Amino acid sequence: MNKLALLLIDVQKGFDNPVWGQRNNPGAESNIARLLAVWRSKDLPVIHVKHCSVSPASPLHPAQPGNAFKDEVQPIAGEPEFTKTVNSAFIGTGLENYLKEKGLDSMVVVGLTTDHCVSTSTRMAGNLGFDVTLISDATATFEREGPDGIKHAAETMHAINLASLNGEFCVVKSTDDVLSTLA
Amino acid sequence: MNKLALLLIDVQKGFDNPVWGQRNNPGAESNIARLLAVWRSKDLPVIHVKHCSVSPASPLHPAQPGNAFKDEVQPIAGEPEFTKTVNSAFIGTGLENYLKEKGLDSMVVVGLTTDHCVSTSTRMAGNLGFDVTLISDATATFEREGPDGIKHAAETMHAINLASLNGEFCVVKSTDDVLSTLA
Repeated sequence: MNKLALLLIDVQKGFDNPVWGQRNNPGAESNIARLLAVWRSKDLPVIHVKHCSVSPASPLHPAQPGNAFKDEVQPIAGEPEFTKTVNSAFIGTGLENYLKEKGLDSMVVVGLTTDHCVSTSTRMAGNLGFDVTLISDATATFEREGPDGIKHAAETMHAINLASLNGEFCVVKSTDDVLSTLA
Repeated sequence: MNKLALLLIDVQKGFDNPVWGQRNNPGAESNIARLLAVWRSKDLPVIHVKHCSVSPASPLHPAQPGNAFKDEVQPIAGEPEFTKTVNSAFIGTGLENYLKEKGLDSMVVVGLTTDHCVSTSTRMAGNLGFDVTLISDATATFEREGPDGIKHAAETMHAINLASLNGEFCVVKSTDDVLSTLA
């Protein structure tokens, strides 16, 4: 159990910008905070991932205030931080090597957004051989418009993307599920 | 234009097995065949990817007849074939190196299934810096059940996954769009 990492993906202030549209799971950050508190109390490994957009206009660009981590997930001493410029936390970062060097072969994934960076990182983690649990109520996404011009609500984007991931790349569980296992 | 590769992902007979459930886009294979014929007629690069499941019971396991490519996409001399055991065509294969060595920085992606191997390969291709066009009517997927037990039709899985991919990892176009550009 001391090898079970909590991977926090892109829990950054820039996602509060209205530019992203309607969001689901408003309680995701409080569930992330609950998980983080238990991980820290048990001295389990915590890993932070930050998106540093290469687009100057993005709320997640390093020169923008939105690049900062949200208050709920400010890293503390000893918690590594990996920065990325694309969706996958495993491309252009040292994350895979870090996990292997530390012998961390399983992880619990939380963060933003379900269908972009969280899905891509979960897919790569699973395909690279890691054992991944994705927390349905500690992730969230935004409404999207399809290539056919049809708009889809954030809750639909979230639910369908979880259905694509569950059982193929990861196991999807709730915050309460995971916390009861750790208790 | 002679650097625009056609990447055919997992167009294998095993996907005709009823075990996968209800499918969308029954015309995907005929659209793939139309694209392949034009690529060959113009001597553009064609790349085949085959899934070799490590699960003996899978219709895609190398010992199963379903591992074979469908008749519409049988490789011909000079067309490279990459085999994979996970969803991403870029993990455990030489595909990324091959593309870079050949100077192929853009690709048109088709195949099965939209939300598993096609999505994962499209995401990685985009994140690795390739310019990706995904063909909406030359891909298809199956019905899935979410972690909450709710069932989703194949058409829903397909449409929502395209909405997550379009504009972030690739541009989604139709077969006719691409063929008219090449004409």
